[in-house]
Amino acid sequence: MNRTNLSDAAGQEPRELASLRWTGEHLEMLDQRLLPEQIVFLSLNEAEEVWEAIFSMKVRGAPAIGIAAAYGVYLGIRGYEPAGDSERERLHNLELKINEVADRLATSRPTAVNLFWALDRIRSRTVEWTAASSASTEDGDRVEQLKQLVLKEAHDIQAEDETTCRLIGEHALSLFEDGMGVLTHCNAGGLATARYGTALAPFYLAKAQGWNLKVFADETRPVLQGARLTAFELQQAGIDVTLICDNMAAMVMSKGWVQAVIVGTDRVAANGDVANKIGTYGLAVLAKAHNIPFYVACPLSTIDMNTPTGDLIPIEERHEREVTEGFGRRTAPQGIKVFNPAFDVTPNEYVTAIITEKGIIRPSYQENLPKLFG
Amino acid sequence: MNRTNLSDAAGQEPRELASLRWTGEHLEMLDQRLLPEQIVFLSLNEAEEVWEAIFSMKVRGAPAIGIAAAYGVYLGIRGYEPAGDSERERLHNLELKINEVADRLATSRPTAVNLFWALDRIRSRTVEWTAASSASTEDGDRVEQLKQLVLKEAHDIQAEDETTCRLIGEHALSLFEDGMGVLTHCNAGGLATARYGTALAPFYLAKAQGWNLKVFADETRPVLQGARLTAFELQQAGIDVTLICDNMAAMVMSKGWVQAVIVGTDRVAANGDVANKIGTYGLAVLAKAHNIPFYVACPLSTIDMNTPTGDLIPIEERHEREVTEGFGRRTAPQGIKVFNPAFDVTPNEYVTAIITEKGIIRPSYQENLPKLFG
Repeated sequence: MNRTNLSDAAGQEPRELASLRWTGEHLEMLDQRLLPEQIVFLSLNEAEEVWEAIFSMKVRGAPAIGIAAAYGVYLGIRGYEPAGDSERERLHNLELKINEVADRLATSRPTAVNLFWALDRIRSRTVEWTAASSASTEDGDRVEQLKQLVLKEAHDIQAEDETTCRLIGEHALSLFEDGMGVLTHCNAGGLATARYGTALAPFYLAKAQGWNLKVFADETRPVLQGARLTAFELQQAGIDVTLICDNMAAMVMSKGWVQAVIVGTDRVAANGDVANKIGTYGLAVLAKAHNIPFYVACPLSTIDMNTPTGDLIPIEERHEREVTEGFGRRTAPQGIKVFNPAFDVTPNEYVTAIITEKGIIRPSYQENLPKLFG
Repeated sequence: MNRTNLSDAAGQEPRELASLRWTGEHLEMLDQRLLPEQIVFLSLNEAEEVWEAIFSMKVRGAPAIGIAAAYGVYLGIRGYEPAGDSERERLHNLELKINEVADRLATSRPTAVNLFWALDRIRSRTVEWTAASSASTEDGDRVEQLKQLVLKEAHDIQAEDETTCRLIGEHALSLFEDGMGVLTHCNAGGLATARYGTALAPFYLAKAQGWNLKVFADETRPVLQGARLTAFELQQAGIDVTLICDNMAAMVMSKGWVQAVIVGTDRVAANGDVANKIGTYGLAVLAKAHNIPFYVACPLSTIDMNTPTGDLIPIEERHEREVTEGFGRRTAPQGIKVFNPAFDVTPNEYVTAIITEKGIIRPSYQENLPKLFG
């Protein structure tokens, strides 16, 4: 594994930083643990390196993890020379190897749904291709063809995620105007996805078409994804971004500096209630009090029609240390009681619109969300 | 200067920690810079030690600084033996010394209004006493009597502040009930005053009468006065306190855990608009949205009838480092734009009542505040 450190590169042009990029030879990964202090790209050549990168959170964000794992399968099989007397036998051994690598990668982050989804997709595609291919008469080295199929599947997963994010961004951008101020919370950005992100997608597209949006990024206590990731990735792309503490959002709104709020989400219930990073609900209440529209950006896959309402979404409470010593130094008394929910639920009445790759959904969500899946 | 470190004292009973205490021999001061990690009491014996303690923010909070300075004057003169052939001449030289020490102490924190107020009060009292005393025929050592007068004035300033805070606490407590949840922001506590504090006063009085209030303390980014000071002093006093990040307040409200919000203030305008630590305005908006009363606790001296409305109160913007590296470690990208206002203004329409030592004031503030000063 090689490292390329860009942190000290002088006179750099603003540029969009990709969390993951296939170079043709290896998987280039931005080490997100080192952000924002260091911009280090890792060159991953082995499945085990990808496993370690996911496990140690060098890559984060559900779609990005899925993409990394897909490339990880290819890295795990590309140098593999299956034994066997016939091509059929060698192909079968390669299939076994693909499953073995996928099984291993699936253990890197046991709760990541997108990880399993991406690995299962590669497994299914392998089975389909082998079945179809062995029934026909193919030319060439079918072992190599299967390896290339796995690589193509990783490319497809990445490309589809980018397309989804771009479509979300285009729909979101139709709600904005040049010169507008927009506030966001946490990080639903390019770093978490193939590119663009969800809530941050319109900012990249606006920049590309020459608009100057003024973005305000909540730092997002306790883990500071806004300060460490959102402020970082927008700054890198040359987008006008101002960092604030979460408790300054109300003042920014009262000053008339923002005309919209846009956030991502971890899960949308069937009635349009939105679970997202802690602080989102308060922001939605403040937006309503200031007559500012409150938008939620997400792919269709985040809308869970099997959860009728937001109060059925379990809210994880995390370790008190995130609050009491979140910055390497203790900043609260020993033994203090702490309430540290990771998420909150914003009732649908505060959500002006939900922006998906299929378009903009407005209330009533009970009526309009099912149409997306019809 | 001696130091007594209580941090490691095992099996301590909960107790209210005084920021300042006259032991009969010296001024005992809790070193607030070391909180919450270390509980260290300093024994100050010299005016210069008090100067340094104020300058380096070992003591903070406007009333507490005034009290410390008043004792500092006494420490600066108690060992002074004025030269002179007559008692009158020696008394005059002592007066000059009092002024010299007060002038020096006034330079310790150039923007602290209470500091100047306390020092001027001692100067005036000295002049009055000397004039009255020299006109009459007094028994005893008048030089020593003047020194004792200065000490008594320091005691009086401290006692009056304690009385003011206790009265504020009693009025505030009349709005609460046993078992209630109450949310507060920043630190308007005993550490900033002689005792009790303003917004925190009702919590101490409730504890004393056996009530169990459940206090939620916003950590109060960027400088974390809620985590470092409010959580600390309430915990020390055995009061039920839970620390949260500022962006969790809305969720705490929506869960029905708090039935009141109470905060201090830096200045109240004549129309009842309230300037206080950044985040207060957002909290007030959230309280209104959840039908939770929003109380402001302050002495009459904080109500500025010469400022008609809150938008005339200047809002200090502080250094971006408080946001980007507030905990000794950089947590935001280099060169990022930051908005870091120290205060915000809460419009009077969000303020359910203003609680002073003279009682509880309710809207319309334009009508009711002037009555306090009638």
